[in-house]
Amino acid sequence: MHERIDAARRAAGLSWTELAQRVGGPRVHTTAALFGQHPLLAEQARRAADALGMDAEETERLIEIPRERIGSRFELPADPTLYRFYEALAVYGPALRALIHEEFGDGIMSAINFNIDLRRVAHPGGDRVEVVLNGKFLPYQWE
Amino acid sequence: MHERIDAARRAAGLSWTELAQRVGGPRVHTTAALFGQHPLLAEQARRAADALGMDAEETERLIEIPRERIGSRFELPADPTLYRFYEALAVYGPALRALIHEEFGDGIMSAINFNIDLRRVAHPGGDRVEVVLNGKFLPYQWE
Amino acid sequence: MHERIDAARRAAGLSWTELAQRVGGPRVHTTAALFGQHPLLAEQARRAADALGMDAEETERLIEIPRERIGSRFELPADPTLYRFYEALAVYGPALRALIHEEFGDGIMSAINFNIDLRRVAHPGGDRVEVVLNGKFLPYQWE
Amino acid sequence: MHERIDAARRAAGLSWTELAQRVGGPRVHTTAALFGQHPLLAEQARRAADALGMDAEETERLIEIPRERIGSRFELPADPTLYRFYEALAVYGPALRALIHEEFGDGIMSAINFNIDLRRVAHPGGDRVEVVLNGKFLPYQWE
Amino acid sequence: MHERIDAARRAAGLSWTELAQRVGGPRVHTTAALFGQHPLLAEQARRAADALGMDAEETERLIEIPRERIGSRFELPADPTLYRFYEALAVYGPALRALIHEEFGDGIMSAINFNIDLRRVAHPGGDRVEVVLNGKFLPYQWE
Amino acid sequence: MHERIDAARRAAGLSWTELAQRVGGPRVHTTAALFGQHPLLAEQARRAADALGMDAEETERLIEIPRERIGSRFELPADPTLYRFYEALAVYGPALRALIHEEFGDGIMSAINFNIDLRRVAHPGGDRVEVVLNGKFLPYQWE
Amino acid sequence: MHERIDAARRAAGLSWTELAQRVGGPRVHTTAALFGQHPLLAEQARRAADALGMDAEETERLIEIPRERIGSRFELPADPTLYRFYEALAVYGPALRALIHEEFGDGIMSAINFNIDLRRVAHPGGDRVEVVLNGKFLPYQWE
Amino acid sequence: MHERIDAARRAAGLSWTELAQRVGGPRVHTTAALFGQHPLLAEQARRAADALGMDAEETERLIEIPRERIGSRFELPADPTLYRFYEALAVYGPALRALIHEEFGDGIMSAINFNIDLRRVAHPGGDRVEVVLNGKFLPYQWE
Amino acid sequence: MHERIDAARRAAGLSWTELAQRVGGPRVHTTAALFGQHPLLAEQARRAADALGMDAEETERLIEIPRERIGSRFELPADPTLYRFYEALAVYGPALRALIHEEFGDGIMSAINFNIDLRRVAHPGGDRVEVVLNGKFLPYQWE
Amino acid sequence: MHERIDAARRAAGLSWTELAQRVGGPRVHTTAALFGQHPLLAEQARRAADALGMDAEETERLIEIPRERIGSRFELPADPTLYRFYEALAVYGPALRALIHEEFGDGIMSAINFNIDLRRVAHPGGDRVEVVLNGKFLPYQWE
Repeated sequence: MHERIDAARRAAGLSWTELAQRVGGPRVHTTAALFGQHPLLAEQARRAADALGMDAEETERLIEIPRERIGSRFELPADPTLYRFYEALAVYGPALRALIHEEFGDGIMSAINFNIDLRRVAHPGGDRVEVVLNGKFLPYQWE
Repeated sequence: MHERIDAARRAAGLSWTELAQRVGGPRVHTTAALFGQHPLLAEQARRAADALGMDAEETERLIEIPRERIGSRFELPADPTLYRFYEALAVYGPALRALIHEEFGDGIMSAINFNIDLRRVAHPGGDRVEVVLNGKFLPYQWE
Repeated sequence: MHERIDAARRAAGLSWTELAQRVGGPRVHTTAALFGQHPLLAEQARRAADALGMDAEETERLIEIPRERIGSRFELPADPTLYRFYEALAVYGPALRALIHEEFGDGIMSAINFNIDLRRVAHPGGDRVEVVLNGKFLPYQWE
Repeated sequence: MHERIDAARRAAGLSWTELAQRVGGPRVHTTAALFGQHPLLAEQARRAADALGMDAEETERLIEIPRERIGSRFELPADPTLYRFYEALAVYGPALRALIHEEFGDGIMSAINFNIDLRRVAHPGGDRVEVVLNGKFLPYQWE
Repeated sequence: MHERIDAARRAAGLSWTELAQRVGGPRVHTTAALFGQHPLLAEQARRAADALGMDAEETERLIEIPRERIGSRFELPADPTLYRFYEALAVYGPALRALIHEEFGDGIMSAINFNIDLRRVAHPGGDRVEVVLNGKFLPYQWE
Repeated sequence: MHERIDAARRAAGLSWTELAQRVGGPRVHTTAALFGQHPLLAEQARRAADALGMDAEETERLIEIPRERIGSRFELPADPTLYRFYEALAVYGPALRALIHEEFGDGIMSAINFNIDLRRVAHPGGDRVEVVLNGKFLPYQWE
Repeated sequence: MHERIDAARRAAGLSWTELAQRVGGPRVHTTAALFGQHPLLAEQARRAADALGMDAEETERLIEIPRERIGSRFELPADPTLYRFYEALAVYGPALRALIHEEFGDGIMSAINFNIDLRRVAHPGGDRVEVVLNGKFLPYQWE
Repeated sequence: MHERIDAARRAAGLSWTELAQRVGGPRVHTTAALFGQHPLLAEQARRAADALGMDAEETERLIEIPRERIGSRFELPADPTLYRFYEALAVYGPALRALIHEEFGDGIMSAINFNIDLRRVAHPGGDRVEVVLNGKFLPYQWE
Repeated sequence: MHERIDAARRAAGLSWTELAQRVGGPRVHTTAALFGQHPLLAEQARRAADALGMDAEETERLIEIPRERIGSRFELPADPTLYRFYEALAVYGPALRALIHEEFGDGIMSAINFNIDLRRVAHPGGDRVEVVLNGKFLPYQWE
Repeated sequence: MHERIDAARRAAGLSWTELAQRVGGPRVHTTAALFGQHPLLAEQARRAADALGMDAEETERLIEIPRERIGSRFELPADPTLYRFYEALAVYGPALRALIHEEFGDGIMSAINFNIDLRRVAHPGGDRVEVVLNGKFLPYQWE
């Protein structure tokens, strides 16, 4: 279905950012949802359907929880743009873990109670991509 | 050598954050450098040696470029704290890539001309971990 | 260190269950902590040290957050006893996911705000192992 | 065939739990069977066919032993909801094994003479998912 | 420890079959146990210790359940003698599964309530290795 | 083609055992051949075609050597019924190898000059699956 | 789409080098772009469309950033021609890294601000393939 | 032995480039040889031994063909500096192969009759790394 | 296309050996070429087309260099007939390498300037397969 | 032990070929045996011990069947000299299999009743390595 959504978006001359504005959700979340990772709220799905000309059955699919979110395989991101995130995680991950444990104690940054955004930061040496990950700290808690 | 640095740090009663302050570098970068991912500047290495009681040969090692930064294997981070970063990348990565391309054109966020920081964000529903990735956008450029 | 703890436990003639009782924690959690997966509370570490004859430095290690909890590799459990858990997850996992989503909505059972216990259930056809997993439901929540 | 069953279930407006009630089997088992992991009893298959409007040949397939239950590949569950079960098994598995051996002797919890159920547990800090695994203990027995 | 047992066995001039006879157990099981896959009974361990000149601590280890039976990795048997068993399983496994299901219904041949033996079968075209696998049939049973 | 054979077999109301009897071959071999692992003799292929209503071209295929017997990938058998064979091989394989070498010298049990059969063994504790592997011993022989 | 481009190129009797000349871009870059790795400039896409007889929608695709550049998997190049590059990288890579670090300091040769060309070098012992990789040096830079 | 060579080189205050000059070989080849990938000529080994203070036995090892050149495993280069070469090969490899075949016919660039060099290229936008691969073209030739 | 060639060959009642004779090339090379691993000479392609009834476009494909010779994946040969070659290489490969280096110096047997043939060798103990690999020795040569 | 044998061989100034002559066995087989893949005959072991100055215990080890011949892992040969054999098998293997089946029927070339030799073949275009594999054909035979 994602293929059809992408084609409809191109045909409608909308960027993902504009489509997210029409749908009325944060742009990373909305784009991910339209890539099949999350359900939309019913109202958001209706707006997406309006923007893209989807029928009732397709609209219904947008509000269902997707059965296989990521797909069935673990994979490192071979794509050049995505790989740089993985490399940063490989180089700085152990330091991040040590500092999270130092700051918060034993636990994790939730990837569920979580959001992410990106923005352009102007810089004389060349504009920069800034990506902010923000997740609730979950301490190991044994009740 | 990282094992000896970690033991000396514990013995000195320093957190990684405090050690980074003594060394005089950003805390994620300095921690990663002391984990063996980066060289320190000579002045920083001297301060690290002072804080940790290292000899001249060990200090010298801190300013050399590490020969094998990440190690010799690609690996997904099985550790629970690190895995959440990978999972977020798996769920939201394709959306991030689409939005970077939309905003900047064909290219990548550099992981070399790059920095990363984390901070605690107070929140009534539980404090949050905020991690900011910031890298220069590099357009594909064929000279 | 786990090897030394195990040897001391055998030498002291303690089962893991008895050791957990002396330490004063739930038995799965305490056993896992002594396997290097979790820190103990300071008081628990002191009791463990008493039971096992550990020195101050070793006791200190027990209250630190372990740096590499699971190890550095994803692995299926090849051991016959552990494999059966994996097989059950393979056979019934998709059904569990569908039912969790149906019951709770889009989200996960936390493995952090989580506990686990096992008990023997007498049964005429042969006693049974009952393992209870109990984790907070975390809905996908984008703030 | 699972795709057709799922579509028919949605069209009939039934949850998996309701469908299991109509079929007259435990909900995890019945859902797994309709996902292609187990045969149904003839009577159950007939009731499933009634609920979903299946023809005789499809009904027949429901009572045959599926030829490839899990599929042809070992895989870790990359899906976020399923991954948490794997992570819990990785973190607590060695402790579980030690305690099973301590309590029952050398052997396994059967994944064949086995059942599994899940329920919602109300909790002031947020409702919890409780999953109970229950399998016959099988001691290593060399006849 | 297995290395020391093997060396002691060679020094004592015993074949594995003779050692199993001294220990008083079936030869495949006893050999496997001395390879670290199973505990021995206390009486068997004492006899093994007598035959091999083992001390009290080593004897104690023989009656404990080994913590990691197979090791921590799934592996196909690259050794030529073992590979042929894997190849036979690859070529004839699907047929065996179909015939087990046809004969016994949905379930498995237990590898726990299980034994295995090998013998030489004289044959004019060259003697043959006969290996008999014998395990209790376990039907899928959901209580 | 195997799919069509299986469908025809079901339509004809034949078990694999009955089909093997009609074809006039051992049941494991014949089933495996019809799964695409071996050619049949011309006479057997003709009988299979009679039993299953196959045309001349399909019958011809049955007597050709299959081009890709096992498929193009090494795989552990994830299916629960097949996995138990692999697990038994993992637990007892090294012992089997030691005993084969002890009994026969350096070499292998052939998987080519080989047969396999299974039978039900009645047992008061529950009927058992007995699988007999029988292969010519091939000594390493350098001419 | 790459398949259609290749077929059109063959039908038009053009080599990749000739096609790149018509398109007006460097030959490695243009060939890679037509293999789906890069977008073309609008003017280049128009010329490609003229040379290959593509319609407006296909032409539009050529100027969009490809969504999955390399594909979704890391792979070593099994093809004999490509494998030699990988082997050279395996044999000489560590030396190259040491010399880059020695010459430029800690950092990388960019694969984004990068070009590559190949040419034939006549040689009495047999003509040679010369491939030149040229990328901007990026020092690790933490702003 | 490579570790000892590297330590001796550091102690002698020599860069790899300077060491190669003393040894009297091309710098990539000589560095790779001292990393254990190639034998040196006897004269070169003597000069290396002079520069690094090696004894006769170590000098002898330098002129022997190394038994395991790359090591026993295929691996993608996870190191950031090396990874960029792999990425360039992934992005441009298929185009290179097509152009080599177009220019030379069916065959490969030899990685045996082969050399490689790197140099710094000054550039107003930042200096560049230029790496030249040069190998004899080998046509598929069946004699 | 290979599937169509194989079907045409069967329909024409030709063995691969006979087809190679008609085509006028060595049988292993010609068979491999018709499997898609090599181009044929124009004259050979014409003869193949005559023997198999291929049209002009198919004939043209036979003289083009195949784009992906082996396919995109490294794989061990799981097929029983092919696996024996791999096993022989695993058992005797290190010895072969040592002897090649001893006999020829540092280098390889080319797999490009290479041929291979097989023949039947009558033997009282059972006929034998003899496979001869013959490749030009390529010394490591740095120009 | 192989390391000690290799060192003794070098110290004695013997090539593998000369050592095989002293031992009195075929050179590939004898070299492989001294690499730990095969037992030697008692007389051969005695001669090897004489040539290399081995003690009684080491000599004894040479006549025992090695417990782990190839090692515990399947691996493609990453070494450049060995890789060419694998590549030839990948390129020509399917053709070899088809021709073996055509010539001999359904079965394999034994890797057990098997020998291998290599020799130098003088050639005006450069000397060639000829490797001859020779194994008994084993037809699939179900007794």
